Amino acid sequence: MLRFLTAGESHGEKEIAILEGFPAGIKISIDFINNELKRRQEGYGRGPRMKIEKDKVKIISGIKKGETIGSPIAIMIDNRDFSIEKLPEVKNVRPGHADLPGVLKYGFNDARCVLERASARETVTRVAVGAICKLLLLEFNINVFSHTIGLGNIKVQNNKISIADIKKLTKNSDLRCIDKDVEKKMHKLIDKTKKDKDTLGGIIEVISEGIPPGLGSYVQYDKRLDTKLSGALMSIPSVKAVEIGDGIKNALKLGSKVHDEIYKGVKRKTNRAGGLEGGVTNGENLIIRAYVKPISTLMKPLDTINIDTGEETEAVKERSDVCVVPSAGVIGESMCAIVIAESFLEKFGGDCLQDIKESYEHYITRIKRFFN
Amino acid sequence: MLRFLTAGESHGEKEIAILEGFPAGIKISIDFINNELKRRQEGYGRGPRMKIEKDKVKIISGIKKGETIGSPIAIMIDNRDFSIEKLPEVKNVRPGHADLPGVLKYGFNDARCVLERASARETVTRVAVGAICKLLLLEFNINVFSHTIGLGNIKVQNNKISIADIKKLTKNSDLRCIDKDVEKKMHKLIDKTKKDKDTLGGIIEVISEGIPPGLGSYVQYDKRLDTKLSGALMSIPSVKAVEIGDGIKNALKLGSKVHDEIYKGVKRKTNRAGGLEGGVTNGENLIIRAYVKPISTLMKPLDTINIDTGEETEAVKERSDVCVVPSAGVIGESMCAIVIAESFLEKFGGDCLQDIKESYEHYITRIKRFFN
Amino acid sequence: MLRFLTAGESHGEKEIAILEGFPAGIKISIDFINNELKRRQEGYGRGPRMKIEKDKVKIISGIKKGETIGSPIAIMIDNRDFSIEKLPEVKNVRPGHADLPGVLKYGFNDARCVLERASARETVTRVAVGAICKLLLLEFNINVFSHTIGLGNIKVQNNKISIADIKKLTKNSDLRCIDKDVEKKMHKLIDKTKKDKDTLGGIIEVISEGIPPGLGSYVQYDKRLDTKLSGALMSIPSVKAVEIGDGIKNALKLGSKVHDEIYKGVKRKTNRAGGLEGGVTNGENLIIRAYVKPISTLMKPLDTINIDTGEETEAVKERSDVCVVPSAGVIGESMCAIVIAESFLEKFGGDCLQDIKESYEHYITRIKRFFN
Amino acid sequence: MLRFLTAGESHGEKEIAILEGFPAGIKISIDFINNELKRRQEGYGRGPRMKIEKDKVKIISGIKKGETIGSPIAIMIDNRDFSIEKLPEVKNVRPGHADLPGVLKYGFNDARCVLERASARETVTRVAVGAICKLLLLEFNINVFSHTIGLGNIKVQNNKISIADIKKLTKNSDLRCIDKDVEKKMHKLIDKTKKDKDTLGGIIEVISEGIPPGLGSYVQYDKRLDTKLSGALMSIPSVKAVEIGDGIKNALKLGSKVHDEIYKGVKRKTNRAGGLEGGVTNGENLIIRAYVKPISTLMKPLDTINIDTGEETEAVKERSDVCVVPSAGVIGESMCAIVIAESFLEKFGGDCLQDIKESYEHYITRIKRFFN
Repeated sequence: MLRFLTAGESHGEKEIAILEGFPAGIKISIDFINNELKRRQEGYGRGPRMKIEKDKVKIISGIKKGETIGSPIAIMIDNRDFSIEKLPEVKNVRPGHADLPGVLKYGFNDARCVLERASARETVTRVAVGAICKLLLLEFNINVFSHTIGLGNIKVQNNKISIADIKKLTKNSDLRCIDKDVEKKMHKLIDKTKKDKDTLGGIIEVISEGIPPGLGSYVQYDKRLDTKLSGALMSIPSVKAVEIGDGIKNALKLGSKVHDEIYKGVKRKTNRAGGLEGGVTNGENLIIRAYVKPISTLMKPLDTINIDTGEETEAVKERSDVCVVPSAGVIGESMCAIVIAESFLEKFGGDCLQDIKESYEHYITRIKRFFN
Repeated sequence: MLRFLTAGESHGEKEIAILEGFPAGIKISIDFINNELKRRQEGYGRGPRMKIEKDKVKIISGIKKGETIGSPIAIMIDNRDFSIEKLPEVKNVRPGHADLPGVLKYGFNDARCVLERASARETVTRVAVGAICKLLLLEFNINVFSHTIGLGNIKVQNNKISIADIKKLTKNSDLRCIDKDVEKKMHKLIDKTKKDKDTLGGIIEVISEGIPPGLGSYVQYDKRLDTKLSGALMSIPSVKAVEIGDGIKNALKLGSKVHDEIYKGVKRKTNRAGGLEGGVTNGENLIIRAYVKPISTLMKPLDTINIDTGEETEAVKERSDVCVVPSAGVIGESMCAIVIAESFLEKFGGDCLQDIKESYEHYITRIKRFFN
Repeated sequence: MLRFLTAGESHGEKEIAILEGFPAGIKISIDFINNELKRRQEGYGRGPRMKIEKDKVKIISGIKKGETIGSPIAIMIDNRDFSIEKLPEVKNVRPGHADLPGVLKYGFNDARCVLERASARETVTRVAVGAICKLLLLEFNINVFSHTIGLGNIKVQNNKISIADIKKLTKNSDLRCIDKDVEKKMHKLIDKTKKDKDTLGGIIEVISEGIPPGLGSYVQYDKRLDTKLSGALMSIPSVKAVEIGDGIKNALKLGSKVHDEIYKGVKRKTNRAGGLEGGVTNGENLIIRAYVKPISTLMKPLDTINIDTGEETEAVKERSDVCVVPSAGVIGESMCAIVIAESFLEKFGGDCLQDIKESYEHYITRIKRFFN
Repeated sequence: MLRFLTAGESHGEKEIAILEGFPAGIKISIDFINNELKRRQEGYGRGPRMKIEKDKVKIISGIKKGETIGSPIAIMIDNRDFSIEKLPEVKNVRPGHADLPGVLKYGFNDARCVLERASARETVTRVAVGAICKLLLLEFNINVFSHTIGLGNIKVQNNKISIADIKKLTKNSDLRCIDKDVEKKMHKLIDKTKKDKDTLGGIIEVISEGIPPGLGSYVQYDKRLDTKLSGALMSIPSVKAVEIGDGIKNALKLGSKVHDEIYKGVKRKTNRAGGLEGGVTNGENLIIRAYVKPISTLMKPLDTINIDTGEETEAVKERSDVCVVPSAGVIGESMCAIVIAESFLEKFGGDCLQDIKESYEHYITRIKRFFN
C-alpha cells in the first residue's frame, strides 16, 4: 500500500513529505525531481514570488547509494521566505479561499493560521512525491505528461496526441501549449488581465501512456481507478471539475457516438473513454482533464468581511500570480503518477523492482494473445 | 469512522451492504428507504427490467425497536431475476463496459464473471445506505436532492434554485426535470433515440441544503471534501466528469467574475464555488454535478471482438434502457449523503444522536456571531 | 487490499460478513467452511445453546461455478434463535462484558442493545471468512491450525510440534488437547467447575506452517506482521494477552538463550521467535498464543448494579458455557489465516490465483539459494 | 482521524515524523517533548551510543505562536552519527533481527539496507509523537506513565498503584523500578550480564489514569481498543507479548476470581480487566504490559550465516546495550498515548480544543448519574 502525507506552511521553514510503501531498487535521480519542481514553478503569468523560490529537494531517508531501499522516503524542500511568525494577522478573509471556512472550523481569530497551510505552496511536495512515482513508472515505460488545453476563454484544438508530440510542441512554450498561435493569444490575454488586476483559470490535460490494462477495479466503489484519479485531481487547489476522456462532451452525445469500438488485436479507433472502462484501465492512454479556476487573490481586491468586526471591507492581497494553469498541469501529472503507481503496486505486488518486473512481465505475457 | 462495503451480482440472489460506524439513536423508516429505492428505479427511458424489479430493503442487523444501536447495519435487497449460474457465457465484450478490462485483469474466459458485478445493479445498495445517511442528516435539517439538468444535447436553464422548489417543480416529472417544456423535448428525444436503438446520457445536479460550514478539511489532500465528493460521484457507473459549483464555466472566466464575495452576516450574492472553498464547506448550498455518459449496451450493437477467437463481431445485448440519467441523480444524492454524513460524524464525533446534537449545537453557537 | 466487515446480533436473524479484495480463481468448498463452523461449536464445556446452533454458511455473492470471481464475497449464517425484539431488557450489567461501558458510550437504557452485538456469536462470521482465507493459503501449502495448551491452571507440556502431529493427537479430543492424560484432568476440572457454577479460561496456540519468509514489514509500525497478528488475536472476545513464540518466557532469559541461531541452509535448531523477526516472517513456523479469560457470565452471578436505579444487585445470567477455550482456538486460526492472507496478497499482488502463483514461485526461486 | 508516519534510518541524517489530524489550540511545550526524549535515552544498561545521542526535537510545521493549528505536525530529530553511506556492509546477519528476513524480502545483498530502518532508533519519533498526544490528553487530566516490573528473571511485586506513587518511587531510579531493593538486584544482574557479554529483557507496565469510559468499541473487530493497543505495543521492536490487565494470570483462574464486580457508583474493588471490557474502556485505569525480549546484538556473537557465501559464521556486532527495558517503557507510554488520543478524538470529534472540551464535558455530565 503506497501512501503519503505532506506537512508544511507556506511561510514555514520547510515543506515536508513522507512517502511510504515505495519498493526497493528504484534509482532516484535528484536532478529529475528538481527538474519537476522547476517545471512546477515556471509559466507565463506567475508572480514575483516564483523568482525567489528555486525549489531544491533534499531526501533524508529511504535511499542508499542512490537507490530506494523500501523504507519510507522523507522529502524536504526549503521555503526561502521563512517568516510565518512575523507576518501580519489576516482579518479580511479572501473569498474563494479556505480563509473563512477555516476560521469557522477551527475557531481562529487570524486567517493566517488557515492560509499558510491551505496555500498551493504545499503542492511542491506532491510534485516531489509524484516525481519519485514517475521514476518507478518509467521502469515500465509508463509516461505521464500534461499540457494546457484552455486558458481563460481561449481553448486549444486538441486531437488525439502523443506525449512525444506534446513534448516536442511545448518545448519552448512557457504556457505548455501545443499551438504557437493560440499561445500568442494566451500571452496577450494574460498581459491584459494583469493590467486589469484580475486573474485567469484554464484547463489542463494529463495523458498517461504505456498503462497496462487491468489497473483499478470495478468490484467496490472505492477501488475504481476513476474514483481515485478524480479525487486526486480534485484535491489540487483551484481545481473544481475533473473529466475523464471526453466525459463532458460524451454526456451530450448518442451512445453510438461515444463508446470506443474494439477491433482485432484490441485496436480502437477512438479513446473517448480516456482509457478507463468500468473504473479499470483498458490499455488505451489514460486521459484526464482538470478545470482550474482563476486564483482567488486579486490585486483588485474582492469584497469581504473582517472576521473581528464582521464589517464589510476588502480582501487582503496575499500574492499576485495572474495565472497558475501550467503549474496545475505539473501538479496534475504528479497526482496521476501517484495514483497509477499505487494501483500498479497493488496489482503487481512485490517489494523490489526485480519482483515487480517478473510479475508484470508474466501478466503481459498472459494477456498477450488478445493483442495479436 | 463511517464506512461501507457492498456485495452482490446483478443476477445473484441478493444485493448486500454493511454500513459500519453509524451512530445509535437514529429512527430508521423502512418506508423512507424503500421510497428511495423506488425513486432510483423510475424514469422515462428505463427498460422492461425495471418493471420486474420492485426493490424492497430488508435490514438484518444494527436496529432494535426501529432505532439504530451503533452496530453495523446489514442491508439486503432481493434480485427477482436470480439466474447467475444459468445465464449464457458472454464472449462478445461490450465497449464502454468493464467487460474486456475485467477479463484481462482476472484471466476469465467469460465476461459474465465481470459484468455481473460491474453492473449498475449494485447501486441499489448504495441508495439504501445513502437513505440511512439521509435520515441522520435530516436530524440536522440537512437535505440532499437532485434534478436532471441535461439530457442528451438538451440542457435546462438552471439558476440558483432551492430544494423546495425543485421538489415542487419535479413532482410529476418522470425525468426529474424542473422545466415542463424542456421535459417534453427530452421525452421526444428519448422516443426517437429508442426507435434508433441508441442510448442517451445527460447531466445531473445534486444540491445539499443546511450544511454547516467547516466540514471537510484543507490540511491534507485526502481529507478535502471535494476530494471525497468527486471520488464518490465518479464511482457511479457511467459518470465520467464531476463539477463542483460552476467549476467548468469558472475555468473560462476572470477571477473577478468567479469568486463569491462576502457581505455582512456572511451573506453572499452568488454561489459559484458550489459551497466549497479550499475543500471545506462554507455554509452555502453544496452543489455538485455529474456528467453521465449514454449507457454502453445498445440494441444496435457496437463492434467488438470475441474473447475466445479474437475475431471481430458484435457486442452482446445485455439490457435495454435508453437513458438512466434520472436514476443517476438518485444515486448521486446517495453518494453525497454518505460523504457528508461521514464528514459530519468526523467533525462532531459522538456515538449517539444525543451527543452529536450537543456537539453540533455548541458549534453552531460558537460560530453564530459571524452570521448576524 | 483484503478487508472484511461483519454484522449481526446474537439473537438477530442472521450473521453476515462481506469479504472484499479476495482474488479470483479459488475453489470454494462449502463443506470445508461448514466443517470449520462445526469445529468452532464443539468442545467439552459448551452449554446447551451449542446444541441448537448447527451453523451452516450460505454464500450470496462473489462465487460462480464454485470459484471466486474477485468480487466481494457475502456470507450469511442463520441464527436459530431469532428473538431479539422479544427478549427482556437487561438492566443488571455483567462485569467482564461490554454491558456497562456500552451503555455509557451509547446512552442506552437497556444493555441488550450492547450485548447482542458484543456477544462472541459474531465470531461465527470470522470463522467463515477465515475458512475462505485458509482455502487460498492451502493453494500455497500454508496450513493454519491450533490446539489447547492450557485450561484453567492445567498446562500442556508443549514442545515444538508439527500440525500433522497435532491433528493426529487431537483427532478424538473434545478439548483439542494433544495429551490424553492432561485432557482427562481438564475434563475433571470442567466438571467440577460446572458444579461450582463457575467458569474457566485457558491458553490456545495457533501454528502456521509453510509461511514464506518476507511477509509483513519492518518499515512502518502498522505494517509489521506482529502488529497485525496481535491486534487480530486480541480482537477475539475473552482474549486478554497475546504472545508470539516464547515471548513471555523469553523476557526472563538471557539473550544468548533466546535468539534462534542460524545455520547453513537457513536451518535453525529453535524457533523461540515464533517465526517473526523484526515484524517479518523468517520462514519458520508462525507461532502465536492467546490467553483466554474465563467467560464472564456465571451461573453463580457476580455482584453488579442495576443501570436504572444504580442500586447493587446480581448480574443477569445470559448464557451458560463453562469454557470456550477450544472454540477460541478455531477463531484464533481464522484471525491468523485472514492476516496471513492479507500480507500474502500484499506481497504477491495479482488478481487471480494464476498470477499469484507465478509471482509466488518467482519469489521462492529468487530466495532459493539461501536455503540450500 | 489521527494518523502518523515515521521515516529515517539509524545512521541517516535525521529521524522524521508527520502527525496528521491533530486538533488546533493545544499548547506545545518543546521542553516537555525533549524531556520525553531524554527519558527514552536513559536507563542503567544502555551502551555508549546513548551518550553521544542527546535528542532534541525540532518542529517544522503545524504550530504557530506555540499552539497547534490543526495542520500536520512535522517533527525532526537529528542523528549525531550520520554515516549511513560510509558504514561497512553487513553480511553476517544477526538472529533475532529483521536482517535475514529483510534481505530475503527485498533482495538486498547488504543487510545494512535492512537494519538501518529496522533499528529501534526509529522509536525516537514515536516518543515525540506520543509526547504531543500526551499534551492533548493532559488537557483532560489523562496521564500515561510506565514502570519496569520485570528485568531478566527478577520481578517486582506489583500491586494496584497510582501514577503519582510510581512517579514518586521511581524518581531517582535509573531502571524506573518502584522497589529500591529489587532495583539493586537488577543492577547487579545487569553488571554480571554485561561482563558475560550477554543481554537482558524484561517487562514493562503502562498505566493510563483519567480515561473516560466508552473509548474504543465492540462493534467491529478492528475498532476495539484492545485490538489497537495490543497492535501498538507489539509494534515496538523487542516486544513479543502483550497483556491487558492480569490477562495472563486470569487465563489460569476461575471466572469468579477474574471479573471485576461493580458496586454502587460504578465502584470496583479490583481492576483485573485492566480497564477494558469488551474492547471498551470502563473508567478504571488502563493497564497494559509488554514483554520485552533481550536485545539481539550480543557482544558474544551468535551463530549465523554469511548472506553472500551461505557459510556459517558469527553475527555482526552492531551495538552494545545490555538492556533497553526502561526505554521500552517510555516507548510503550507513547504508543498508548497515541492510541488513546486517536480514540478520544474519534469519540469527541471537534477540530479544536474548545470544541473537544465542550463535547467531552457534555458526555461526562450525561453519564454522571452512574457514578454517584
